[in-house]
Amino acid sequence: MIETPPLVDQYCHGALRTELGLGTFEAQLIRSAGPPAAGTTFFDTQTGFAVRRWCPPLLGLEPYAAPVRYLARRRELGAAESARLLLRGSGVAAYVVDTGAAGDVTGAKELALAGDAEAFETVRLEPLAEQVADTSGTVAAFLANLAGAVHHAATGAVAFTCGAAAGHPSVLAHAPQPPDPGEVRGAAGRWLERRARGGTVRDPVLLRHLVWSAVASGLPLQLHTGAEDPAPLAGFVRATAGLGTRLVLLGGYPYHRQTAHLAAAFPHVYADAGAALGQTGARAAAVLAELLELAPFGKLLFSSGGRRLPELHAVGALVFREALGRVLGGWVADGAWSWQDAGRVAAMVAAGNARRVYRLDERG
Amino acid sequence: MIETPPLVDQYCHGALRTELGLGTFEAQLIRSAGPPAAGTTFFDTQTGFAVRRWCPPLLGLEPYAAPVRYLARRRELGAAESARLLLRGSGVAAYVVDTGAAGDVTGAKELALAGDAEAFETVRLEPLAEQVADTSGTVAAFLANLAGAVHHAATGAVAFTCGAAAGHPSVLAHAPQPPDPGEVRGAAGRWLERRARGGTVRDPVLLRHLVWSAVASGLPLQLHTGAEDPAPLAGFVRATAGLGTRLVLLGGYPYHRQTAHLAAAFPHVYADAGAALGQTGARAAAVLAELLELAPFGKLLFSSGGRRLPELHAVGALVFREALGRVLGGWVADGAWSWQDAGRVAAMVAAGNARRVYRLDERG
Amino acid sequence: MIETPPLVDQYCHGALRTELGLGTFEAQLIRSAGPPAAGTTFFDTQTGFAVRRWCPPLLGLEPYAAPVRYLARRRELGAAESARLLLRGSGVAAYVVDTGAAGDVTGAKELALAGDAEAFETVRLEPLAEQVADTSGTVAAFLANLAGAVHHAATGAVAFTCGAAAGHPSVLAHAPQPPDPGEVRGAAGRWLERRARGGTVRDPVLLRHLVWSAVASGLPLQLHTGAEDPAPLAGFVRATAGLGTRLVLLGGYPYHRQTAHLAAAFPHVYADAGAALGQTGARAAAVLAELLELAPFGKLLFSSGGRRLPELHAVGALVFREALGRVLGGWVADGAWSWQDAGRVAAMVAAGNARRVYRLDERG
Repeated sequence: MIETPPLVDQYCHGALRTELGLGTFEAQLIRSAGPPAAGTTFFDTQTGFAVRRWCPPLLGLEPYAAPVRYLARRRELGAAESARLLLRGSGVAAYVVDTGAAGDVTGAKELALAGDAEAFETVRLEPLAEQVADTSGTVAAFLANLAGAVHHAATGAVAFTCGAAAGHPSVLAHAPQPPDPGEVRGAAGRWLERRARGGTVRDPVLLRHLVWSAVASGLPLQLHTGAEDPAPLAGFVRATAGLGTRLVLLGGYPYHRQTAHLAAAFPHVYADAGAALGQTGARAAAVLAELLELAPFGKLLFSSGGRRLPELHAVGALVFREALGRVLGGWVADGAWSWQDAGRVAAMVAAGNARRVYRLDERG
Repeated sequence: MIETPPLVDQYCHGALRTELGLGTFEAQLIRSAGPPAAGTTFFDTQTGFAVRRWCPPLLGLEPYAAPVRYLARRRELGAAESARLLLRGSGVAAYVVDTGAAGDVTGAKELALAGDAEAFETVRLEPLAEQVADTSGTVAAFLANLAGAVHHAATGAVAFTCGAAAGHPSVLAHAPQPPDPGEVRGAAGRWLERRARGGTVRDPVLLRHLVWSAVASGLPLQLHTGAEDPAPLAGFVRATAGLGTRLVLLGGYPYHRQTAHLAAAFPHVYADAGAALGQTGARAAAVLAELLELAPFGKLLFSSGGRRLPELHAVGALVFREALGRVLGGWVADGAWSWQDAGRVAAMVAAGNARRVYRLDERG
Repeated sequence: MIETPPLVDQYCHGALRTELGLGTFEAQLIRSAGPPAAGTTFFDTQTGFAVRRWCPPLLGLEPYAAPVRYLARRRELGAAESARLLLRGSGVAAYVVDTGAAGDVTGAKELALAGDAEAFETVRLEPLAEQVADTSGTVAAFLANLAGAVHHAATGAVAFTCGAAAGHPSVLAHAPQPPDPGEVRGAAGRWLERRARGGTVRDPVLLRHLVWSAVASGLPLQLHTGAEDPAPLAGFVRATAGLGTRLVLLGGYPYHRQTAHLAAAFPHVYADAGAALGQTGARAAAVLAELLELAPFGKLLFSSGGRRLPELHAVGALVFREALGRVLGGWVADGAWSWQDAGRVAAMVAAGNARRVYRLDERG
C-alpha cells in the first residue's frame, strides 16, 4: 500500500456557483464542439462514469448512481454545499487556480474556503492583456501597462499560464524567438483596433510577446499543449533554456509520452501528470504509467484540470491517487521498485514537485 | 462475465471464392509491399497467430495447428464450406459489406447466406466513379451520371466509403471545403483522358468531389484513415459539422487515440473499434482499452475489417468479443464500472451503435 | 516459463574505461541537454531505478542500493572489474558494437573479452567520412577514398550505422533518392572547407551520399530514428526496396508502433526491440508488447543500446529478458499463444533474427 500525502493540484479553474440541471451539467463533462450526437450522452464516457463512481458517495448516495438521481441530490444540497463536500472529499491540500476563466465561477480564495485547502493563483496571459487593453488609450500605453501588469502579477501569483500559444502550431513552433519590438507594436496596434469590434488575443506575434514577457518574469510558465504533439515546441524550449524560467506543459494526451520526453531532455521542462487521468477514468493507471516511462520523477506534477464542475476537481484527485497507488504498488509487487522508492516518488508527484517548482512554501 | 449480443460488423469485404494454397493464403494475412522477407513468414505475426488460435477449432482441428495442417484441412472442406463454418462460428448477426473490392469475392448476399446473417452494402466511391466513367462519353455526362449514381446508390446502401481521400494527407487535409464546379470539370476531364490509358481515381479534386457528393446524400460516410494521424482531417470535420452526415473513421491504428479524440470533440464523428483488433491478436484488449479512453461509448462501432479470407472476418469478431469482455470485465472487477453499465456499453459497441448510425433496423 | 537463449545485442557502444564519481556516472544515465534540474537527479528515472535494481547484485550488493553506496562499491572494484561482472551477468553471447563513439571507451574486442562474448562491428558512417577527410587533399580524392573506405569497412563489419540521416526529417524524408554526383561534389567541397574550421557531417546531401554508399555495399544499414516519427522515411524505404539491403530502424520510442508498422509493410525493414526497454525499466514489458502488435516476429531484434556505462548494457539485457518472458508468458497463460510458439518467438527476437540479418554465423 503506497501512501500518498495530501495533493497539490497544480492547475484548475474555479467551480460554477450556479445550480445545474441534467443538460447543463452534462454539457460541462467533456469538451465538444457541440451537444451530444442523437442517441448518445456525455455521461457515457470515461469522465461520466468516473463522476458516477466517485461523486455520489461524497453526496451520500451509492456509487454508480444514475445521472438523474445524482443531479436531484445535488440540487437538494445546493451548488455550494455540493462543492464543499466534493472538494473536501478529494484529499487536496492546495490548489493553483487559473482565475482567468469566464463564467460565474469561484475565485481562488473561495475555492480554498470551500475545499478547506490553500489556494494560489496562476495568471492567464490572454485575459490579462484584455484587461490592460480596456484601460489603455494608445499602443505605447498598452505595451507599457502590460509590462507593468505582468510585473505586478508576478508578485502575487505563483505562475503564468497561456492557453493559445502552445496548442496552435503556428505560434511558438514557427517562431521560437521573442518578436522584435517593432513587430509587437504593429501587432498590438492591429489588435487594439480589431478588438474595439470585440476580439480576444489570437495574434501570433502578440501571443509570443505575452509568453516572452512571462518568461522574463522568472515565474514558471504553464503552457497548454491541448491534444497536439508538443515536439514542435522544441525550438522554443531550446530558446528558453538557461533563462531561469521553468516551463510546465499542461495537457498533452494522447501525446503525453512526447511531453515526458521533453521533460527528460530539457532541465527546465516539467510535465503535467493529472489532467488526462480524470478524463480517462478507468484507464488512468495505464495513462499515468506511460507518463512514468520517460519523465524524470522530479519533473511530473499532479493536476486535476478541474473546471466549472467541482466533480471534475474531485474525480481528478481521486482517480489520480488510485492510479498512482496501483501503478507504483504494482512495480513494488513485481520487484522492479523498492517500497521506499515508490513512497518517495508518490510524494514527489502528488505534492513535493509542485511545492518546489511553484515555491508554495515561500508563498503560503 | 459481460454478455455481448450478436455483433454488427460495420465494415468488411467479401470472401475469396477460390481455393488457396499455403503461399496464396499467407499473402492475404497482412498488408505488405512484397512477399515475406527471406527467413520469415507472415504466419509469424499476431494476425497469423490469431488465425491459428481461433480458426482450426471451427474446422474441426485443435487450436494452434501448424499452417500446413490447417491449409490441408481447409482444402479438404473446400473454400465454400470453410467460409460457412468460419462465418457461422464468429457470432456476427449483420455485415456491412464494401462490395467495391477487386477479385473473385462473395457479394453481400452471398456473404449473408454463408454466415446465416443479414448483410448491407456500403458503396465505395472510387469504383462507382470508374463504372460511371465507363459509360459516359463527355465530362458533362460523367458528372451528371455520377450525381445520379450516387443518388441511386444512396437508396440501396447504408453508407458510402472512400479509401483514398482521408489516408492521403494531400487531399482532405489540404482542402477541407468542396471543390469549385470549374475545378471539378477540369479534374474530371483530365482523369477521363488519362484513364483511357488505364487509371483509377487518385486526383485530389475528384476525390474531394466524390466525398462531398456522398456528404450531400446524407448517408454516413466511412473514411479509411490508414495508418495515418487523423488530426489533419479536423478542417474537413469542421466543414461537415451540422450538415447531417455522420463521418465514421475506419482504421486509425496506431493513431486510434487521436481518432477517439475526434469522436469526442465532434458530434458527427464516429470511430471504428475493431479492425485493428484482429490484426493485433493477443494485444487486442490493450488496443481496445486505449480506444475506450476518450471515445464516447455511443461513438465506437465494431468491425472485423475482414477481407478475402473469411478467417479474417472470424478472427476479427472472436478477438473483439474476447477483448471487450476482458476490458469491461476488468473494470467491473476493479470497481471502476458497474456490471450493468458494462453490459450496456458492450451492447452499444458490439451492435447497437451500428444499428443506430446506419439505420439497419429500417433497412433490414 | 519461456526460455530465452543467450542474447545477441544488435546495437551498443563500448564501455568507459575511466573511473566515475557520482556526478559523472549520473550524467551518463539519460540523454539530456543539461545537468539535472535543481532538486532532481537522473537517478530518479526508470533508467536509474533499473540500474539500482539489477546492477548492485552483480557487484555483490543488495538490490535497490543507494547511488552513493553503489558508486563506492564500483570504485572499490575498479571500472574494468565492474564492467566484467556487469557484462558477464547479463546473458549476452554476442555484441554488435558501434565503434565510432567518442570518448575513452572499449572497442569491440575489449568488450568481447570483458563480457566473455563474441563481438562484431557496425561502422558509423559519419566518423568514417571524417577519418577519410583527414587524409584526403581534394574533393575528388575524398570521394574516391570514401568509396574505398566503405568498401573496405564492408568486408570487416556486419553493418553500417548512421546517426543523423534518419532522425533529422530534413534529410531522407525530403529527398529519398540518392543525390546527383554533382550535388555530392559540391556538398563535399563545402564541407571539406568548413571542416578545416572544425565541423562534423551535418550536410543533408553528404549524409544522403553516405547512406546510399552503405546501401550499395549490401550490408544491413542501421538508421537511428531518435524520438521522431519514422513515417516520413517511407519514401526512402520505398526507394531502397528490392536493392538487397536491409534497413534496421533503431530507437523509435515513443513511435515504436510506427516503426513496427514499417517493418510489417516493407519486407526489407527491421525494427529494434530493445533500446527503449532499459530506458523505461519497470515499463519495459508494456513497451515491448506494443512493438509486438504489428511487427512480424522475424523482424524484431534485441539491442541494449548500452553506451559508456556497462550498467546500461546489463540493464538493457536483463530488463529485455524479463519483459520478453513476462509478455510471451502472459499470452500463453491467456491461451492466446501456444507454449511452443512463444519459445520459438523468444529465440527469434533474442538472437535468431540478428544472427540471420547480420549473418553472424558466417562471420564469427
